[in-house]
Amino acid sequence: MNLLSEREWLAYREKNKDRARMLISCPDRAGIVAAVSNFLFQQGANIVQSDQYTTDPETGRFFMRIEFDLVNLKERFEAIKAEFAQVADSFGMDWSLVEANKRKKVALFVSKEDHCLLELLWRWKSGELHADISIVISNHPDMKETVESFGIPYRCIPVTKENKPQAEQAQLEAAAGVDLIVLARYMQILSPRFLADYHMRIINIHHSFLPAFVGAKPYEQAYRRGVKLIGATAHYVTEELDAGPIIEQDVQRVTHQEDVEALKQLGRQVERTVLARAVRWHLEDRVLVYGNKTIVFP
Amino acid sequence: MNLLSEREWLAYREKNKDRARMLISCPDRAGIVAAVSNFLFQQGANIVQSDQYTTDPETGRFFMRIEFDLVNLKERFEAIKAEFAQVADSFGMDWSLVEANKRKKVALFVSKEDHCLLELLWRWKSGELHADISIVISNHPDMKETVESFGIPYRCIPVTKENKPQAEQAQLEAAAGVDLIVLARYMQILSPRFLADYHMRIINIHHSFLPAFVGAKPYEQAYRRGVKLIGATAHYVTEELDAGPIIEQDVQRVTHQEDVEALKQLGRQVERTVLARAVRWHLEDRVLVYGNKTIVFP
Amino acid sequence: MNLLSEREWLAYREKNKDRARMLISCPDRAGIVAAVSNFLFQQGANIVQSDQYTTDPETGRFFMRIEFDLVNLKERFEAIKAEFAQVADSFGMDWSLVEANKRKKVALFVSKEDHCLLELLWRWKSGELHADISIVISNHPDMKETVESFGIPYRCIPVTKENKPQAEQAQLEAAAGVDLIVLARYMQILSPRFLADYHMRIINIHHSFLPAFVGAKPYEQAYRRGVKLIGATAHYVTEELDAGPIIEQDVQRVTHQEDVEALKQLGRQVERTVLARAVRWHLEDRVLVYGNKTIVFP
Amino acid sequence: MNLLSEREWLAYREKNKDRARMLISCPDRAGIVAAVSNFLFQQGANIVQSDQYTTDPETGRFFMRIEFDLVNLKERFEAIKAEFAQVADSFGMDWSLVEANKRKKVALFVSKEDHCLLELLWRWKSGELHADISIVISNHPDMKETVESFGIPYRCIPVTKENKPQAEQAQLEAAAGVDLIVLARYMQILSPRFLADYHMRIINIHHSFLPAFVGAKPYEQAYRRGVKLIGATAHYVTEELDAGPIIEQDVQRVTHQEDVEALKQLGRQVERTVLARAVRWHLEDRVLVYGNKTIVFP
Repeated sequence: MNLLSEREWLAYREKNKDRARMLISCPDRAGIVAAVSNFLFQQGANIVQSDQYTTDPETGRFFMRIEFDLVNLKERFEAIKAEFAQVADSFGMDWSLVEANKRKKVALFVSKEDHCLLELLWRWKSGELHADISIVISNHPDMKETVESFGIPYRCIPVTKENKPQAEQAQLEAAAGVDLIVLARYMQILSPRFLADYHMRIINIHHSFLPAFVGAKPYEQAYRRGVKLIGATAHYVTEELDAGPIIEQDVQRVTHQEDVEALKQLGRQVERTVLARAVRWHLEDRVLVYGNKTIVFP
Repeated sequence: MNLLSEREWLAYREKNKDRARMLISCPDRAGIVAAVSNFLFQQGANIVQSDQYTTDPETGRFFMRIEFDLVNLKERFEAIKAEFAQVADSFGMDWSLVEANKRKKVALFVSKEDHCLLELLWRWKSGELHADISIVISNHPDMKETVESFGIPYRCIPVTKENKPQAEQAQLEAAAGVDLIVLARYMQILSPRFLADYHMRIINIHHSFLPAFVGAKPYEQAYRRGVKLIGATAHYVTEELDAGPIIEQDVQRVTHQEDVEALKQLGRQVERTVLARAVRWHLEDRVLVYGNKTIVFP
Repeated sequence: MNLLSEREWLAYREKNKDRARMLISCPDRAGIVAAVSNFLFQQGANIVQSDQYTTDPETGRFFMRIEFDLVNLKERFEAIKAEFAQVADSFGMDWSLVEANKRKKVALFVSKEDHCLLELLWRWKSGELHADISIVISNHPDMKETVESFGIPYRCIPVTKENKPQAEQAQLEAAAGVDLIVLARYMQILSPRFLADYHMRIINIHHSFLPAFVGAKPYEQAYRRGVKLIGATAHYVTEELDAGPIIEQDVQRVTHQEDVEALKQLGRQVERTVLARAVRWHLEDRVLVYGNKTIVFP
Repeated sequence: MNLLSEREWLAYREKNKDRARMLISCPDRAGIVAAVSNFLFQQGANIVQSDQYTTDPETGRFFMRIEFDLVNLKERFEAIKAEFAQVADSFGMDWSLVEANKRKKVALFVSKEDHCLLELLWRWKSGELHADISIVISNHPDMKETVESFGIPYRCIPVTKENKPQAEQAQLEAAAGVDLIVLARYMQILSPRFLADYHMRIINIHHSFLPAFVGAKPYEQAYRRGVKLIGATAHYVTEELDAGPIIEQDVQRVTHQEDVEALKQLGRQVERTVLARAVRWHLEDRVLVYGNKTIVFP
């Protein structure tokens, strides 16, 4: 069942075997681009794509994402990192360098709803998400068969009020070593301790409306107000519930004809699209975080 | 400067001289459609368009909008209304009957921003809004020249904390006899007494975000949160601020590149489109209100 | 693997057990709505939803879709059809009456691409498509395992230039008795004889651009022209290739950054969404055809 | 009537007085970004924004747009251009350097339809289009009063089959010195000689459909086919009619309810939005042309 993505992955891997991505964030000042591009030129790299953004020309912060090709990248990777550290220090950079063909490891967390899970599995299988899905973790057994049919391990860890710390400990162990956790409609709140381990590496999806409806049963509230748009927001999870940096949003038009069930169904369609886009951008290192917002270079 | 819209209006008027619109809302039960369509058939009317909606098949409320053509409508209008009243009574209907070629009278309220005002004037002049714009009322003198160049009276009524009751009285007198008030970025809150005179006949436009940002400077908040969509909502004005029945909403995609000024500029584009659509639907009797929501038959 | 959709289907079935849908198309004249609604009222039916459209008030054609509830529908179904035939005859109606909880039988035709197939299977499994998928027919063996994992029979019928008539015969036999054929990226042209058996009951999906690109490799052409939107069109299949009545269309924004592969990938996303919507509307009897266009009552 | 845009323009001018934009296109090879950014760093420039795109990493073409701030830009402008020419030569660059606060001169060509004209005038007056509208040229007198009320000269040059060369000569003289010509629904075809003078400096807007409808009366054709989307395309004008590089496109949803007139009205809404965006991007030097496509850095 995995032949397709394997083949596509191999083609992608061959095409990207010498490609690296550098992410930079630092106080803005003249000379950053010159310093970085000189460094890469001296290494013999060819810049394939470069995006940058400055929050404010005068006093602001500078963000950059560079993709470049470099012969024998794998062998030279550590040496280049060590050398670039000197450039980075002189500008006070937060930075990272990743190999484009190194797949990130992902754990998916789900509860009982399958629409976001299936969308991610489907895109992963079709070769659109360049990642290893290491494990799917759920507080319910419902998705076990579906997930295992994709050849992915499934771990059911029930969560109750009483066992929450132990359950989280079990989750952390089951997900040990992953680069990203995706809450694909995982309806539990994670503790600050859990979040600390995965700072800006947990993506959540939730419904969104204009305006927002605070409190229980938001779809019922939206129906009673007669909203004309329903939407979804994918964001990094922070301690303040549903208030972390937004990665992607989208909406779907509705009318008075849609009852609450129909609104929820359309909401699920928006959620799976928005979450898939956000996860993909994260996996391709297209998302930088600054304060409580993201800079996305799509 | 008015030749174009005059000509278009005359063509529209000729085409619609025998057309009427009936709006109905009543408790749902079997036989409503039969009773209404029999009545119209016996009058010799030809149904041109008919839309209906039932909130819930079992215990719900029934809504209907019918457009029909009837020879010599003008002469027979009052007689038909009197006769239909008997049908309506037997079903406990809220209902109205209007002549399609009778232009509604509209007053526009503005402050200093001109984007919504100009959009409405432009669409009115191009023949898209079948209405008489009786007057533009503002608490500032800024738009006087622009408005008068369209041949429309402009009345400046300054509003302060102290003179608010008197100012509202002056506004009500200046707008006397209008069927609809459009708050085209009129930044003042209207008193309950004012609202009572124009129940579900005042349309407002305001910015909207996913999620909503409560408090001052919403665009600044939206910018700091890095929203990916900004939107606008057109709604009927009720006593609870910005919480009346929604008529129309739309959004515009944005990125981290837009600064606060750019977000506001894009917000203005969405606002003028959304408001123009809402006003048009109201003028064409396409909007029914039930509880705090609208049924729109576009 | 089918428990979810079974449960949802049972709930839907219970809710809709007395619901019928009537589709009508006839020359417009006064009295149609009265006659139909009287008939239903006398039968004791309660109209749940009703949509109508007239091509032109003077000389045009009238279209109507009515949903109604009627106690003991199943038992009275044939009798009601016989009685309504008299009303229908007097207006020269094309009409049909269907039970809402009678699932249509569907055959899916596919080649090697799986995105449209999987979307339909996914929505079917989640209870969104009220249909029985009787069989999946393909000219390639690739999807066999996937399809059978959904509990649906898979039939591989290779098609060559030489065996095309026999292959089509085998397809017709394999699909015998289905109400709808969906070409979910089935890349073969069907013969006029095949089409005759399924007049306006075959739905196809294909990519669309503004403007259209005639000839081979449309995505390559679109890339070279630098289009900013790519889209998809779902339509009924007629003898003129890709020119049958359009059921649904949508687009996706793109930029110069997308290469041909990325355009195709985005095109696949639009295709699966558009096809799923079109199939659903057809299954719910929301699509009427007139000349070379559709009237869709969504 | 111009006070608002004057004030906004002065603020913009002050903010941008030392800002320049450099556009580059050349064969891709390693070291371009390093060379350009070094040059700017040595001049003391601060890069504010930088976008780049490479058609193909191996053998492709490289495109770049850089915005930078440089103290005393105006005084040093010619010297910098002379110096950069040496860098540019060594890479075989097509390039240009412009001062951000130097307004481009624009001529608008119109016929009888006013929707695109008014949208551009409205945005210009509101300060969104940083340009001088030097003149509006038309083959009809209809818009004279409207245009002159904005303080812009209006020149009526009737065009017939017989006088076309002379008329074009008169147009060229009336538009002498402008940087951009916008065909805001100017329904005449320009001669190759005219186009040669304004290579990739004439923007046209026209309706677009999926699929395209070739031949006369496209809206009637679209109506008969029952399209669900209508759109508009803004493009540079080349000798092949309506086939020049696309700058921007958008669509609007429609249903069977819209008659031909309503489709045209919605088409006009899309046209004015799309044209305004395209003109703005051109004025801000965000559009590069390569072959028959554009690279847009929005």
